[in-house]
This record gives sequence, structure tokens and C-alpha cells, in this order.
Amino acid sequence: MKHTKVRDLLNSTTTLQEVNAKGWVRTFRNNQFIALNDGSTINNIQCVVDFENTPEETLKRITTGAAVSVIGTLVESKGAGQKYEIQVTKLEILGDSDPEKFPMQPKKHTLEFLRTNAHLRVRTNAFGAIMRVRSVLSFAVHKYFQEKGFVYVNTPIITGADAEGAGEMFQVTSLPLDNLPKTEEGNIDFKQDFFGKHTNLTVSGQLEGETFAMALGQIYTFGPTFRAENSNTSRHLAEFWMIEPEVAFNNLDDNMDLAEDFIQYVIKYALDNCGDDLKFLEGRLLEEEKSKPQAERSEMSLLEKLNFVLENNFKRVSYTEAIDILRDSTPNKKKKFQYIINEWGADLQSEHERYLVEKHFKCPVILFDYPANIKAFYMRLNDNTEPGRETVRAMDILFPGIGEIVGGSEREERYDVLVEKMKALEIDEEELYWYLDTRRFGSATHAGFGLGFERLVLFVTGMTNIRDVIPFPRTPGSAEF
Amino acid sequence: MKHTKVRDLLNSTTTLQEVNAKGWVRTFRNNQFIALNDGSTINNIQCVVDFENTPEETLKRITTGAAVSVIGTLVESKGAGQKYEIQVTKLEILGDSDPEKFPMQPKKHTLEFLRTNAHLRVRTNAFGAIMRVRSVLSFAVHKYFQEKGFVYVNTPIITGADAEGAGEMFQVTSLPLDNLPKTEEGNIDFKQDFFGKHTNLTVSGQLEGETFAMALGQIYTFGPTFRAENSNTSRHLAEFWMIEPEVAFNNLDDNMDLAEDFIQYVIKYALDNCGDDLKFLEGRLLEEEKSKPQAERSEMSLLEKLNFVLENNFKRVSYTEAIDILRDSTPNKKKKFQYIINEWGADLQSEHERYLVEKHFKCPVILFDYPANIKAFYMRLNDNTEPGRETVRAMDILFPGIGEIVGGSEREERYDVLVEKMKALEIDEEELYWYLDTRRFGSATHAGFGLGFERLVLFVTGMTNIRDVIPFPRTPGSAEF
Repeated sequence: MKHTKVRDLLNSTTTLQEVNAKGWVRTFRNNQFIALNDGSTINNIQCVVDFENTPEETLKRITTGAAVSVIGTLVESKGAGQKYEIQVTKLEILGDSDPEKFPMQPKKHTLEFLRTNAHLRVRTNAFGAIMRVRSVLSFAVHKYFQEKGFVYVNTPIITGADAEGAGEMFQVTSLPLDNLPKTEEGNIDFKQDFFGKHTNLTVSGQLEGETFAMALGQIYTFGPTFRAENSNTSRHLAEFWMIEPEVAFNNLDDNMDLAEDFIQYVIKYALDNCGDDLKFLEGRLLEEEKSKPQAERSEMSLLEKLNFVLENNFKRVSYTEAIDILRDSTPNKKKKFQYIINEWGADLQSEHERYLVEKHFKCPVILFDYPANIKAFYMRLNDNTEPGRETVRAMDILFPGIGEIVGGSEREERYDVLVEKMKALEIDEEELYWYLDTRRFGSATHAGFGLGFERLVLFVTGMTNIRDVIPFPRTPGSAEF
Repeated sequence: MKHTKVRDLLNSTTTLQEVNAKGWVRTFRNNQFIALNDGSTINNIQCVVDFENTPEETLKRITTGAAVSVIGTLVESKGAGQKYEIQVTKLEILGDSDPEKFPMQPKKHTLEFLRTNAHLRVRTNAFGAIMRVRSVLSFAVHKYFQEKGFVYVNTPIITGADAEGAGEMFQVTSLPLDNLPKTEEGNIDFKQDFFGKHTNLTVSGQLEGETFAMALGQIYTFGPTFRAENSNTSRHLAEFWMIEPEVAFNNLDDNMDLAEDFIQYVIKYALDNCGDDLKFLEGRLLEEEKSKPQAERSEMSLLEKLNFVLENNFKRVSYTEAIDILRDSTPNKKKKFQYIINEWGADLQSEHERYLVEKHFKCPVILFDYPANIKAFYMRLNDNTEPGRETVRAMDILFPGIGEIVGGSEREERYDVLVEKMKALEIDEEELYWYLDTRRFGSATHAGFGLGFERLVLFVTGMTNIRDVIPFPRTPGSAEF
């Protein structure tokens, strides 16, 4: 007979004569009550075993982690906490799980221990919930853009272009490393490499995305990007997924509107579609914070925080205003910041961003119009700025507890201005001829942004380490599995 | 004023007093008629310029590829082929396009020429259509699995595991290639590399996906995969996107049902949502085939072919039956096959697959139960086979014109059998300890498959070279952009 998912059984509107459930034993109490989970929901279904008529041999094999198939009657539960349970008439052990060996016993494990078991941690409540939320958020991303008529573009992962300078790149090669071919001059002969040139893993699909936006109008990417940076922090991964929409004819204001609307949409979608998982994660966070001093605990619960983001506009603040606020702030005056803000032009550090978001505004903040010389070459120079105080139409969105979640800009659409900027920064025009073609032929105002997907998942799940919201994290020294 | 997308203007149900459209000039006829496209649809909107009251200077700048903004009245068109057109009252050139320099002039270009201009080819009708269809197919993939409760899993791109042997791998490193650190023994010291070990780009997320399926029940991946194989063919890419669902408790029959239902769903979704684009591509294919001899032309038009796949069950044929058919076939007897099929156990070549699909059955075919020794180590050994004729629960789906589009199997769930197989093939058990854990703890029957996304796009768009259905193709000697 066909088995039914636990989620569907728990959502049944009626008792049922004969059902089959398959899943993994989470716990087995009193030689009688199996809490069975199949990953379709965070909730287990209680399966009541007729222990008097079940061989001792079989009962012993009902251990945490074992795969079982049960056939029985779906009846109203007398126990608390569930509407239905299965009165088991037939039980089959599909796969054993030796309690002496299975690492995921039903007790508290540290997140560090679980990280070393990334292939098994997904069998815990917390990681099951995180991965379901991550999946639903991914779908919300696609749904949002597709419904608005955006075209999904798979920009290349292996790239011969390394001019953007968004970060350190990983090299990709099929040359034999222990016997690299050399040119007559003694350099490595990349002509003999697979692509006939030196190649890297992409740090961003933006430049390629722009070429598509200038044809299809509205596009977005959603794919893996890479940074070979030795950042061993709770906010950085060497391999992470990024979403990069790009829209022809959009200016910076349109870009801010899009980013805000997008973020609110996907959070709402998660709230509407992952209620049980988010409620569980809210409880997990509360539990975790109990061990912290009061001052470090969150002011809002997870669901309150998510609803707060939905119900409140993001605060839009120019860089210049932000500098004024920071300069006059108590931590700046009392020299509590590691980097004291003295003058306009200073790059903002994460301590400053956190102050603005968490202490001053207490809501998501969009900072815009940054000094030109601390931002990327492709950003639109503002008109009519004072000499020495040139700004670009950049924006960063800062989230409480997360920091920068979005970076974007209106792009410099003027060929001459762009080329001049590239020259000043010694960016090779010939290598980026294809990017410049977007400005040579039918150029127009356009804008876009990048959102680090894991940071979004971090925010929505209330987790605090980015390694816990991606299936198999890649960080310095770690590429297991 | 806010501009309106061309698609929305063309779909308007009424004339409109004042509209603004922005896009790129496809053609400009008689100093009067702009065919304007903004990528939202394959169709252009006709913009009628009041040439008598427009400066000569401006008219000259309305060239193919130029970006323009027009304001005017949406009126019923007197011309054939469109319901509405814009009577322009105000025209602004946003970005020029020098007709002497812009490569995408409105004339026939070869696909080879367009490939060298991958950043501009998307401005043509055909590539705009292909990229929209690709995007809609991607969404259909997510929609199908999400609606069925599958969890989307991002398996790692950079991997320390290289045991599967699905194909040649690209190496990933941040070591300085011109000064590689060495161990005392004179080997390359990968301990000093970013991940502290030798790493590669993934060839498949299946093994990691299985670990998640054995916790979440139903999962799918959809991400880039890589093969460093020197296959310069119209069916191979070095970087391509793969979809890999994996389902706990599914056997091979369930797996075939899933694959067939999935493929039919996404094709139907494309037909329902990309009608105009597919109609255009159907015309393109007809045009292209006119230059071919009658015998090489398709028997069905593109839309007929897609509908045929929807309306007909895939033919399920065991390997053993297929060998009998091939052995008795005319090309085998007349020695027209390059590889003559003499006996059971022979690996099938693409010529044999094509014969089965295109000549014998004339429909999509699912071949299953292959000889064990020509298939991967993780496939479920069939029970009760004759010694010397062991088979595994593998399946390949073969499509007309495309060949293999899906490869999948029921997985070997028995720990002992799997380990024995790995030993025989000298696959390192220790390196794959995490994969074996799925069989150590709560193992169960499960099955999955991989579908090469570009081959699906190839089939749906009627294109014949896989380089034409991905934005920026990566092939031997080519990683431009």
C-alpha cells in the first residue's frame, strides 16, 4: 500500500481505517510510543505499538534513528499535544540504528558538534526546520521575481574575467599541479589549461547580469558565489548563494523600493508557509538566550522581529546624515568605537552599522549616496556634488543582528564617465569590452542589488552562525563532504 | 511618469490617453515606425513617430539597438499584426547605438557569430525567447517540487570528496600556482591550501542529496555541476545546471513515475506560459530545417513534438529487451552501427539510443535494469538474477534528438552489499564514511535521478546546440565574459 506523509496524517480531517506511515524514530517511550518523523513537518506523529503482541526482538530494534514502516488506524489521540495518532497493527523495521553508535541521540548537542556531522544534523528538529525554511525562502525568491516578469539568468560560475575586484577569487584549473606546463619565458602556460586561459570562480554575476538586463529589461540571478577570503567569522562563508536582480530604467529610488518590497515579500511568504518551523525556531532562540545576560538577549521574539520588519518601512538615511549621527553619538564621543568617526569620507565599520540599526533607528536601515572613493567603479556618480565630496548612487541595507544584507546601486550608464573611472582604477578596458558594450549600444539608466541569501536565512531563522543555515558550509580549512 | 512594459501595453484591454514605454529600437521604417522591444515579450510595440515635427537630428538617432523612451497615446493600430500602437507625442533618445558599430543589425546572423557575442545575442528575437523559456522552465522545476513538498537543497559546489567518479573534475585552489608550497617529501602541500586539502568542483550533488533525503524525505537539488571533459560536441558543456531529486522510500517504479510526471509538468508549464516564444521558436526551426534534405527534417513541428510528449506515456523497456531489439535491427544486421551489438552486457552508444527512440519506438523511452558492471557503485543490485547477468535498478530516459536526458536509479540501501561493491571498485570507504552513515543508521529504500537542465531547454526550444541555451557557455577553450 502507498504510504502517507506525516504532515498529511496530522492534517487529516477525519480518522482513517488503514494508513501506512514511513519515517525515522525520534524517540520510543515506555516500550509503546514511537515519535515518528519523516521530514515533511517538524511535528512527529505518535505511533502506539501493541507491545504485548510485538516480539521483544522487534521492540528492541525501535531505537532513535531507525527507519520504520507502520500500518495501523488513524485515531483521535487521548494524549496531549496531538489530534491524531496511529494505533499500530503492523510494524516493520526498515533500517536499524545502533544506539551505541548513532551520534544524533535525543539530547542537547552543541552547534559545533552538529557542524562536524552536517550529513546527520539535518535529522534534528532544529536543522530540519532551518532547511525547510531555507527551501521555502528560495522558492519565495523565485516566485516574487517571476510574478513580476523578471527573467532568471544563470550567470557563469567559472569566469575568465577577474577585473571586478569584489573579493579574492578561487582559481579553477585542470592543469596537473605537480607538473605545470611552462611557456618559453618560464611562466605557467595557461593556454594549455582547459579554457585556454586562467580562470576563477565568480564573485558576482552582476556584470554579466547587466548585459542581460539591457536586453530583457528585468532579470535576476540566484546562484553560488565564492570568496577566497580568510574570514573565519560567524557571518562569512567561502561559498554562498547570492540573489542579484538588475532592472533597466530603474534609478536608485526604484532600486530601494524593489529591495524593500522583495525582502518583505519573502519574509511574509516564510511566515505564511513555515509557521510550525518558525515557531519551533522561536522557542529554540528563547532557550539559547536564557544563558545570556539580560542585556544581550533579543528585545523581540523571532516572530515579533519578523513581523516588525513587515510592518515598518525601512529607514532611508544618506551616508552624510549617518556620519552626522555617528559623530554625535555617545560611543563616538566616549571613544567606545574601535574606529572613531571624525570626518566625512570615513568607511563605515560593522560597529557603526550596528549602532545605527540596533541603537539609533532600531529598524532596518537603507544607507545611500556613499562617497565615491569607497565604492565600486560601476556606481553612478551623483550630479552636482561639491568637489572632494563626490558621492555615488550606492545603497546598503543593514539589518539588526546581521549587518549588511543588501548592497546595490544605480549603475554608471555614461560610457565616458565609466571609462574614465576604470582608467583611474587601472581596470582593464579591453578585458571588460563586453561590459562596456552595454554603454556603447543603447545605454540607459539601470540599477540592481545583491542579497546574500544565507544572511537572509540567518535573519529569518534566528540562528547566529551562518554555518548553520547552509547544508554543507565551506570555510577556511573546511570542505568536508 | 512611470513607464509601462510592452507586454502590458500589448495586452491592454482598452486604448489609453497617455502612456510611456521604454525599450530598444529593433527597427525603424520609413522614418516613422519604430518597432520597440523591452524584453518583456517577444513582440514589439509599434511606435508611430510624428516625423514632420521631429528634428532630423533626432530621427537620425533612432537606430537599431538605441534605447528610447516614448510618450504617447495607445491607439488601435491600423496596420496588420498588432492590436495597439503608440502615437508618439514625445520621444527621448536614452542611449545611442552607432549603426556602423552595433553588431546586432536586423539581418540573419549565424549561431556561431552570435555565440562570440553572448552578451549581445540576447538582444535578438531568438535568444530573448530562449532565455525567457529557460527562466520559465526553471521556475516550473521549483514549482513542481515545492508543491509536492520537496525540500530544495543546495549541495556544495566546492567539494573535498572526489570518490564518485562521475567524470573528470576541475581543481579549485588558492595556492600560488607559480610558487606551490611543498611537503618535505616534495609533494604539493595541500594542507596550506584554503580548505586544508585538495578540492574540486562538484560533478553531482547526489551523494550529499541522499543524506538529506534520509532526513527530510523528499529533496531536490538544482545547481551548477562541472565536467572537465574535452567533449567538443553540441550536447556537452563544462558547466551546466542539473536537477537531482531524491526520495526516501521510493523504488525504481516510483522513480520512473516521478521523472515522467515531472518532465510532462514542466513542458506543459512552458507551453502554458511561453506560448508566444515557443511559437516564434517553432517558426525559427522550420526556417532552419528548410536548408536540410527532407529526410533530416523533423517529422513534427516544435509544438507538435512538445504536445506529443505530454500526451503519450514514455515507453518503459528493460535493457535486456532493448538488446534483443537492437540485435535484430536492420542497422545491426547490415553493420551500419559503428558498434555492433552482439551480446548482452554491451554498453549502449548514442547511435543505439537514437535508434530505439527515433526509429523503433518513436517516443521517449525509459530503459531500466542495466548490467551491474556498466553502472555506478551506488545502484541497487536486483534480486534473483542469473550469475554473470547481474543487473542494477538503473534507469535512463532517452529523448528524440537529445539522447539521454535523465539518469537515475534506486539506490543500494544494504550496507554490506554497498561496502562490498565499493571494495571491488576500490572506492575509499573512509572518505565516504558520511555517505555510508545513511546505510548505517536508519537505512531504507530510496531512489532519485539527475536531469541535465540544458538538455531539457534544448528539447523545449528546438535548438540543436547546447551552447545556445545557456547564457554564457563554458566549453573547452572558451570561458569568455
